[in-house]
Amino acid sequence: MNGDTDALITSPDPLHPANHICSLCHKFYGFGWVTGTGGGISIKHADHVYLAPSGVQKELMEPKDIFVMDFRTKEYLRRPKVLKPSACTPLFMAAYTHRGAGACIHTHSQWAVLVTLILESGAQHHPSHGKDVFCMKEIEQIKGISRGGTGSQEIAEGGRKLGNLGFYDTMMIPVIENTAHEEDLKDTLEKAIGEWPETCAVLVRRHGLYVWGKDVAQAKTQCESLDYLFQLAVEMHKLGLKWI
Amino acid sequence: MNGDTDALITSPDPLHPANHICSLCHKFYGFGWVTGTGGGISIKHADHVYLAPSGVQKELMEPKDIFVMDFRTKEYLRRPKVLKPSACTPLFMAAYTHRGAGACIHTHSQWAVLVTLILESGAQHHPSHGKDVFCMKEIEQIKGISRGGTGSQEIAEGGRKLGNLGFYDTMMIPVIENTAHEEDLKDTLEKAIGEWPETCAVLVRRHGLYVWGKDVAQAKTQCESLDYLFQLAVEMHKLGLKWI
Amino acid sequence: MNGDTDALITSPDPLHPANHICSLCHKFYGFGWVTGTGGGISIKHADHVYLAPSGVQKELMEPKDIFVMDFRTKEYLRRPKVLKPSACTPLFMAAYTHRGAGACIHTHSQWAVLVTLILESGAQHHPSHGKDVFCMKEIEQIKGISRGGTGSQEIAEGGRKLGNLGFYDTMMIPVIENTAHEEDLKDTLEKAIGEWPETCAVLVRRHGLYVWGKDVAQAKTQCESLDYLFQLAVEMHKLGLKWI
Amino acid sequence: MNGDTDALITSPDPLHPANHICSLCHKFYGFGWVTGTGGGISIKHADHVYLAPSGVQKELMEPKDIFVMDFRTKEYLRRPKVLKPSACTPLFMAAYTHRGAGACIHTHSQWAVLVTLILESGAQHHPSHGKDVFCMKEIEQIKGISRGGTGSQEIAEGGRKLGNLGFYDTMMIPVIENTAHEEDLKDTLEKAIGEWPETCAVLVRRHGLYVWGKDVAQAKTQCESLDYLFQLAVEMHKLGLKWI
Repeated sequence: MNGDTDALITSPDPLHPANHICSLCHKFYGFGWVTGTGGGISIKHADHVYLAPSGVQKELMEPKDIFVMDFRTKEYLRRPKVLKPSACTPLFMAAYTHRGAGACIHTHSQWAVLVTLILESGAQHHPSHGKDVFCMKEIEQIKGISRGGTGSQEIAEGGRKLGNLGFYDTMMIPVIENTAHEEDLKDTLEKAIGEWPETCAVLVRRHGLYVWGKDVAQAKTQCESLDYLFQLAVEMHKLGLKWI
Repeated sequence: MNGDTDALITSPDPLHPANHICSLCHKFYGFGWVTGTGGGISIKHADHVYLAPSGVQKELMEPKDIFVMDFRTKEYLRRPKVLKPSACTPLFMAAYTHRGAGACIHTHSQWAVLVTLILESGAQHHPSHGKDVFCMKEIEQIKGISRGGTGSQEIAEGGRKLGNLGFYDTMMIPVIENTAHEEDLKDTLEKAIGEWPETCAVLVRRHGLYVWGKDVAQAKTQCESLDYLFQLAVEMHKLGLKWI
Repeated sequence: MNGDTDALITSPDPLHPANHICSLCHKFYGFGWVTGTGGGISIKHADHVYLAPSGVQKELMEPKDIFVMDFRTKEYLRRPKVLKPSACTPLFMAAYTHRGAGACIHTHSQWAVLVTLILESGAQHHPSHGKDVFCMKEIEQIKGISRGGTGSQEIAEGGRKLGNLGFYDTMMIPVIENTAHEEDLKDTLEKAIGEWPETCAVLVRRHGLYVWGKDVAQAKTQCESLDYLFQLAVEMHKLGLKWI
Repeated sequence: MNGDTDALITSPDPLHPANHICSLCHKFYGFGWVTGTGGGISIKHADHVYLAPSGVQKELMEPKDIFVMDFRTKEYLRRPKVLKPSACTPLFMAAYTHRGAGACIHTHSQWAVLVTLILESGAQHHPSHGKDVFCMKEIEQIKGISRGGTGSQEIAEGGRKLGNLGFYDTMMIPVIENTAHEEDLKDTLEKAIGEWPETCAVLVRRHGLYVWGKDVAQAKTQCESLDYLFQLAVEMHKLGLKWI
């Protein structure tokens, strides 16, 4: 079957989704975001959804390992025989469907996990949302985060705000509880996306982060900004400083 | 002698054990796992056991430096003249013999050493095993760890579990005490392998980690997952959070 | 328009400002100084000011992305159509105008941000300047810092000191408060430059660092020395040690 | 003049001292050992002493930047015109003269500096030597350290021990106080070398480390092992654990 479908993942263009997913996985491995086969990434290109496989060494990924799904029919147009599709697939689809995202990244970053553990312990918490939302404000890097993940998300309360957060805005990232099987996160993740229209990401307790953007560049730079903020938050906590 | 045996370590295939050991040592050096000539790695290919030498700079290793042993006779088929075989050799053999492993990695990772020191101090401990086992649970990365190191280990208590640990399983890695000479760890390491049929690794107090897998990919990705979990455990401890 | 002005950014010389800005951005990305499109860099070459654009992935920057401004007229000689000039531009110009700098770097380094947060908390402070100046002394790396950023700055109090700080000198870096919009930092940054003639840099609370030098090499090595000192200061604070 | 002396630093062999110093400086820059032009390295090859220059960006060093001194006459055989010889030169010469070293490395590693600060604070100390010696024992990586730095140093108390430290030996590295000018460290460094015949290194308070070996490989791997032990010591101290 792959013989018929290799055209989907063959291109000399380094920005073709099949090539781009591989070069990003190599980079993310260097950041510790996808160590031990954890984490993943997906790019939506028109009606084709490109997906990294499950359980592979991310720094060795090649275009031939990439799955391709038809966004409308949800059927795989290309399935590498010896590999399994990522268990994150339904979660990536949620960002495409509900946010109009063009790319989605999942990391196991330790900073993300530690932030969820600190919240769980109650040592830092939000006055109304307790351990279920990560908040920061008045840190310049927050300006790297767009409203809704794409900067064009309609806000629930009638009005509409566009673009990125400002220095005096409070960034709020919802935290959902982990489940035994990754695909079972779909319902709570979709619920969080619905309840937090300004968020560009969802934290999963004791697990990691899902973050999206209108395209790969935005998903990646938002992932970098969030990871920076999570690390800063952990260091602040060690130094006895409050996040908000 | 090497003239006759160079064929054992000469191949254009980057995945040939002699080449693969070298490229992995270069990578592990970057992770701080084999700094200052510490640590080591071995690959078993059919009845040939490939071994990195002792006391060399791991980031400069070349195929000509590799030892090859016959697994059945335990005799060296290839011995580079100016080098000594790794003192870890009997420990690697234990994983091959008792677990059917296909690759084994030894690191001096600081996170592994720190975890054994925290346990020794009594500041974190297991209710029944005290300072002699490292436990974690309900962290997603635990799912990167296979039962018994290969996923097909027979469990002592009659039944049989296959595959990887789940999110709600407790990962338990035994800790043995260090000895003056590395080869003297053989008996306690074999005892730990016998007593902990589900473990994929053994921690050595104030020293480092031994981890194996059915093949190189599994040994390496399990080593990555464990190192991630050890680092997370140290950071959790700094933040006042319990491991279990 | 760019067709006419590409000559300004086209050179086979790796030290040409357009090429040099790109290679430095790639390096600084690796240090975590310009993650998530944050931070920036500028080089002044005779009367041409070269500027990295705003909001781009710094590790992917190419010469075609570079803005060029005439230092005397403050008019852009080259403006890439799809990009915006850096919001730091007025801040870089301040270092060129008031210090005779030849290069200026802006980082979002977490160590810089953490130092400003520790000062804000009052846990470390200067006897007379409180939270508004970062001080260190008797650390060898301070000798990597020049007086005034270029080593030839006239000192306000009549006399004149040249060259770099010594081991027994106290390094003092002023801290200004952040603003909602980066360009609004211009007035307080210029005020700080005026009031602290010996400084080579200005810290911006909860934001990052501006540092300059007489040329690129000095700006970069001073940025490295400061980042080293900020990281050391954070680690010292964690260990309960005073900075002065 | 250089025209006549370029033969001293020109070779296609990557292990020729002039090439080797450059490749090691590039590597050490990546480790944070020689950031901001700090630190240095020297190799002795027969009666020629090769020295990195002062105040240059270590990751950009080229063979043409290297100084060469005659070990017997202490005269420079090659002096790059625009550069200054390293202020560490008399300190490197001390290791060559008093220990028969073949290579010497000087780092500004933060872990080394932090260890000297922790000792200064009295929070960790040696029963008889107080803040003036760094001690560790029963950590496997100590076995990477040779007696006297070369493994063949005659020990003051009559007897003679060869080779590397064992797991149950106590590693003791003397700490000397910093001075305003690096060359003024010569006397106290020579005194420390004389008083501590088993040491392979001298720590300089609030400054960094000098470490040597019989050749480059030994100096470098000992520097790696020490840096590993200093980092481990800082982490142990954060966790409330004693070094001895």
